[in-house]
Amino acid sequence: TKTYKIALLPGDYIGEEITSGAVKIMERVGKAYNVDLQFTRGAIGGAGLDEAGHPFPEATKNICKESDAIFLGAVGGPKWDNVASNLRPERGLLEIRKELGVFANLRPVKIHSSLRDKSPLKESIIGDNLDILIVRELIGGIYFGEKGREGDKAYDVMSYSAEEVERIAEIAFEAASKRDKRVTSVDKANVLESSKLWRETVEKVAKKYPEVELSHLYVDNAAMQLVINPRQFDVILTSNMFGDILSDEASVISGSIGMLPSASIGKGVGLFEPIHGSAPDIAGQDKVNPMATILSGAMMLRHSFNMEEAAKIIEKSVELVLEKGYRTGDIYSGTEKLVGTKEVVEKIMEE
Amino acid sequence: TKTYKIALLPGDYIGEEITSGAVKIMERVGKAYNVDLQFTRGAIGGAGLDEAGHPFPEATKNICKESDAIFLGAVGGPKWDNVASNLRPERGLLEIRKELGVFANLRPVKIHSSLRDKSPLKESIIGDNLDILIVRELIGGIYFGEKGREGDKAYDVMSYSAEEVERIAEIAFEAASKRDKRVTSVDKANVLESSKLWRETVEKVAKKYPEVELSHLYVDNAAMQLVINPRQFDVILTSNMFGDILSDEASVISGSIGMLPSASIGKGVGLFEPIHGSAPDIAGQDKVNPMATILSGAMMLRHSFNMEEAAKIIEKSVELVLEKGYRTGDIYSGTEKLVGTKEVVEKIMEE
Ligand SMILES: CC(C)[C@H](C(=O)O)[C@@H](O)C(=O)O
Ligand SMILES: CC(C)[C@H](C(=O)O)[C@@H](O)C(=O)O
Repeated sequence: TKTYKIALLPGDYIGEEITSGAVKIMERVGKAYNVDLQFTRGAIGGAGLDEAGHPFPEATKNICKESDAIFLGAVGGPKWDNVASNLRPERGLLEIRKELGVFANLRPVKIHSSLRDKSPLKESIIGDNLDILIVRELIGGIYFGEKGREGDKAYDVMSYSAEEVERIAEIAFEAASKRDKRVTSVDKANVLESSKLWRETVEKVAKKYPEVELSHLYVDNAAMQLVINPRQFDVILTSNMFGDILSDEASVISGSIGMLPSASIGKGVGLFEPIHGSAPDIAGQDKVNPMATILSGAMMLRHSFNMEEAAKIIEKSVELVLEKGYRTGDIYSGTEKLVGTKEVVEKIMEE
Repeated sequence: TKTYKIALLPGDYIGEEITSGAVKIMERVGKAYNVDLQFTRGAIGGAGLDEAGHPFPEATKNICKESDAIFLGAVGGPKWDNVASNLRPERGLLEIRKELGVFANLRPVKIHSSLRDKSPLKESIIGDNLDILIVRELIGGIYFGEKGREGDKAYDVMSYSAEEVERIAEIAFEAASKRDKRVTSVDKANVLESSKLWRETVEKVAKKYPEVELSHLYVDNAAMQLVINPRQFDVILTSNMFGDILSDEASVISGSIGMLPSASIGKGVGLFEPIHGSAPDIAGQDKVNPMATILSGAMMLRHSFNMEEAAKIIEKSVELVLEKGYRTGDIYSGTEKLVGTKEVVEKIMEE
């Protein structure tokens, strides 16, 4: 029997509901493969603030240090709207990313065939095989640059080193070489110096992957192309800020943001969380779609514990439950079986 | 008879085709109102480079200085892909904006009722009354901040002063007070210091407009909302960089980027140009849709010369030509009358 330690950080509002089902499913699958998954709970975001006065408390940091992977729910919400900006729940997220050194945020955007009608885009545009992987740089750029005030001015510095660009580009090219072998790098090299460095460096890295086709798009054009022709993309490689914007845009194009997982990886342990937020409006009502979190669990098994088969079993079970027509409200069209969070988890367990 | 001087800067590729028709239409309408519109041609972008070795030549600058308004086509294209970055055609655009001090870029995004089916969004989402005005700050932020290299690093500084935010916010609130009285300010105040200043300042300005409702969105959320519920917006107020991304995203949502005009205004003369680019692929083939440029002309008559009625006549004529079913390829669905650039101009003249 193998043992893996996982830091379980549910976070705020729906955080508890979405992670608890995912944990059950992972434990069950783990057992089948003789893997003992040991979850240790920690507070983050608003919960960290309430419990320990900080959105990423020392105690949680220590739990993370002793873990093989981090499994996170969602953070933030109106309860902490008025706290000082350096203590906001979101700071917890930024700090844990930085602390773990997870420089690559992987966001697969897929349309499940049974959910095709949920996309806001016309069928002629969305087609039936949208499958994009967004690779977003996560611990550099303007998010972590120097910032401050000077008189009546405020500033933020966007900065990248060649090394930072290189390592994220490598992740993108590696991923592409196992997919459709195309990388679209997104920048604003016609205006920004950091984007020029980005482009130069990505081009250098591309030379190591002659089988992968590289193209470049300006970020404004990329925001357009995602809407008018999302199927043109295989892997999108971009910086922290542009990735934040484009990955959210791409996720709603799929029509079911409640289905989308993410993995943040670096040199050490990885961080796995759904893309969606903490949904204060439906928290505690057994309404939220747990699938994004469950699929994030599958990504964790795959990336952190090399449990490819177990990951596939979870993904396949989610697919089957969708095909059988069980739906939470966010993906319900009026004709399928409307169920709650818990029942979705049970149905996936059954599969 | 009144006389106005206009700098006519066709720019590159389709620039000549789109501006020449618009000029004819404006001259005709001007005559009807006893206004003499005097156009003086100048080179900008790639044309400036070819003619005078600079994307915004001194000669053009001088023409602008003696003009009451600037009318621009489009710049850029593959011909100048390999010039030094400080001489790229786009630099001409950035420099003319800065030189003129046009800090407010106004981009109305509308769906013409006869073009509703062109939107990539489902009809249930796009509805029939999309009417957004994007107000983008145009001469500050990361576009014009300090930038450079330091060892293997590259950086760009995003900076705003309270005064810069104030003046653009005022434009947005003024516009909203004449429209549906709602401003959505877009920033990333949960991460950026300059966004925090942006938000504080916008809130101050809002106090002067109690009849206008202000809300805030993070830029990632705004990129999502534009796709899932674009009809929620009246006026969107945002910074240079975010405005670049969001206004392009919004423009394709309308389904007909070839229809969208823009006005850039400041303390002095204004700059009027279509939103779309220089379309090298269809240049010189009498194929391009001249309507965005013609509607930019209408905006010029309205904003710079206070010729409201003349502007309305042009806008109405464009509407009528659409209703009669004359379409260039970009807005042709297969059943209307497919016509070329010149014929569209003639049809509008007839109306
Ligand atoms: C909460 C916020 C700081 C965060 C980000 O911008 O990175 C979020 O939007 C995300 O994309 O994970
Ligand atoms: C050409 C480019 C520099 C420009 C910009 O980013 O401002 C363009 O995209 C625009 O939006 O007018």
